[in-house]
Amino acid sequence: MNEKLNWLNDAVKSWNQESLQAAQAHQAQLTKPPGALGLLEDLAVNFAAMQGVMKPELDNINICIFAGDHGITEENISAFPQAVTAQMVENFVHGGAAISVLAEQLNARLVVVDVGVNAETSSSTKVVNKRIVAGTKNFSHQAAMSETELSSALKVGYELAEQTINNNGQLFIGGEMGIGNTSSATALAAAELGLPVAQLVGPGTGLDVEGVTHKCQVIEHALKKHRAETRSSLTRLQYFAGVEIVALVGAYIRCAQTGIPVLIDGFIATVAALYARSIKPQTANWFIYAHQSQEPGHQHVLSALKAQPLLDLGMRLGEGSGAAMAVSIIKHAIALHNNMATFEQAGVAKQADKNTVLEIT
Amino acid sequence: MNEKLNWLNDAVKSWNQESLQAAQAHQAQLTKPPGALGLLEDLAVNFAAMQGVMKPELDNINICIFAGDHGITEENISAFPQAVTAQMVENFVHGGAAISVLAEQLNARLVVVDVGVNAETSSSTKVVNKRIVAGTKNFSHQAAMSETELSSALKVGYELAEQTINNNGQLFIGGEMGIGNTSSATALAAAELGLPVAQLVGPGTGLDVEGVTHKCQVIEHALKKHRAETRSSLTRLQYFAGVEIVALVGAYIRCAQTGIPVLIDGFIATVAALYARSIKPQTANWFIYAHQSQEPGHQHVLSALKAQPLLDLGMRLGEGSGAAMAVSIIKHAIALHNNMATFEQAGVAKQADKNTVLEIT
Repeated sequence: MNEKLNWLNDAVKSWNQESLQAAQAHQAQLTKPPGALGLLEDLAVNFAAMQGVMKPELDNINICIFAGDHGITEENISAFPQAVTAQMVENFVHGGAAISVLAEQLNARLVVVDVGVNAETSSSTKVVNKRIVAGTKNFSHQAAMSETELSSALKVGYELAEQTINNNGQLFIGGEMGIGNTSSATALAAAELGLPVAQLVGPGTGLDVEGVTHKCQVIEHALKKHRAETRSSLTRLQYFAGVEIVALVGAYIRCAQTGIPVLIDGFIATVAALYARSIKPQTANWFIYAHQSQEPGHQHVLSALKAQPLLDLGMRLGEGSGAAMAVSIIKHAIALHNNMATFEQAGVAKQADKNTVLEIT
Repeated sequence: MNEKLNWLNDAVKSWNQESLQAAQAHQAQLTKPPGALGLLEDLAVNFAAMQGVMKPELDNINICIFAGDHGITEENISAFPQAVTAQMVENFVHGGAAISVLAEQLNARLVVVDVGVNAETSSSTKVVNKRIVAGTKNFSHQAAMSETELSSALKVGYELAEQTINNNGQLFIGGEMGIGNTSSATALAAAELGLPVAQLVGPGTGLDVEGVTHKCQVIEHALKKHRAETRSSLTRLQYFAGVEIVALVGAYIRCAQTGIPVLIDGFIATVAALYARSIKPQTANWFIYAHQSQEPGHQHVLSALKAQPLLDLGMRLGEGSGAAMAVSIIKHAIALHNNMATFEQAGVAKQADKNTVLEIT
């Protein structure tokens, strides 16, 4: 590992076990049959353990979209042209994209980071310029990026996670934009999990069946070509990732090191989570999986992570949009945990008190 | 049908087809691959058709909890004592129950209606007194309620739906509270769908396996005993329902007649929706199914209704709580529909423009 990656050796933060137990004990006293709130109970309790309190809070949400272009688009593997990456970056900062609308509704801080767009982005100061490359190289032929570019892209993620900490962020959502990046994510997932590309590949933004078949062949060919050079997770990222995916990996790891819960979006974000876990296994404790994407590879990656996403709304947009949809679920879970009455407070008979009904207080 | 039920003959309102088409056309112009927002796209478009506008609104949410007791609790079919119904009614109005917390978070109007509680409820004016009976009769032995009580309970639902209209409510959520009411709902579902009780029966608030077996036998026995008298949906309601379930049926039908979208909660609410549809088939156009409950009968009733619920969070609480969880999903769907930029507004290339990339505007 080169020196620029020394920060990867920092330990992942542990959950506060005392808070976990206190929150579990509190949850068990709330006026409902035990377990009747399903996933919401663990969600609130785990959040308490992550924040080191009995009653957690979730007001300050940071959404960070990393954008980057992909040399692999030369192989005609996307339904949309590469120029759309830069156009969508503008759309993010001008409030017209799905994630912009959701961020506004959630009163979340939205940061858009150019990690490697292959076009002029406007002079808008709203786009954070962390450009490392003007698009990756075509991974059909060569590594998508150099070792140095890999380290730099991880560091961009690190920096944005640190910004979240400095802003007292209580939840980090990483989004991505990059025409061609389902090809990149599919290659990464296939290489990491040892699964056939055909099982993981999908239409992305909207390829037809013929397009998906071609995309599959392009990825299979590239995996075979670079097999000898891609024996570690880091080299796989270097060869097949986009810089925006690498930035996600870096951000996820830094959040876990510093104790910020991460809400993981769809296919591409989950592949980044897979790599974060592979590089630093304990990071996964800080990940909450937001939704099941329609992109076929997603369920395989979720299975590998033993992850149970909160939502299944048939979405496949990226941008962090599926994660943003799940924020309200977590907020509700926390409000229920914090604000429901206990059996004692409400004078409600518990199951165990079946034969000794309490008076209404 | 007796005269008090004449209102059931009023027609169910139709969707506005012009608004439906306008909303579909608008949705297709938004800056995302077609279909990438999954269920959220139809949700917003259908809401537009229900409200008769291109861009729908959802600010004014009415939650109405109907409470009633069940004579069947004499048969020891619940993990909690009957007194809990009244205790939870107090908890609802004092803000300590799950639905109270969620209503507060959603800034929704919460109305708690005593349709048939078998205990003093406090003098609190916050509980709307529409009591028809002090608990139903034990349906092991006789009809749960008289024909007149059935008509009156339907009318309570009618009245609360009318209140929602008078308050300019844009969404109606019906909740229920009644110890013993999963037994009632299971009997109703089995009788209406012709399914074996064993396939539908579940633990309710928390019976063990032995308890569930006993509950199953009690329900099977009752269905057999009353078979000859329960050949219509209305007589099935009269024999097996609780008055709170009947009030839900009445409210759902009145909402559909007057054009208020209804967000259907879990097992018991969905059984009420099944009966509403059976009595007035077109009502189902106005129903949105909020979540998949853990209660085993729920999925069978949803299948019969060809319903795809929005959420699956492992909840099984009732009170309208699962429906309240889904409100944010609908709000997000509507905000995305209303506030996202179109391709033209944002200067983003559409899929079809692949070879003629637009300039960034």
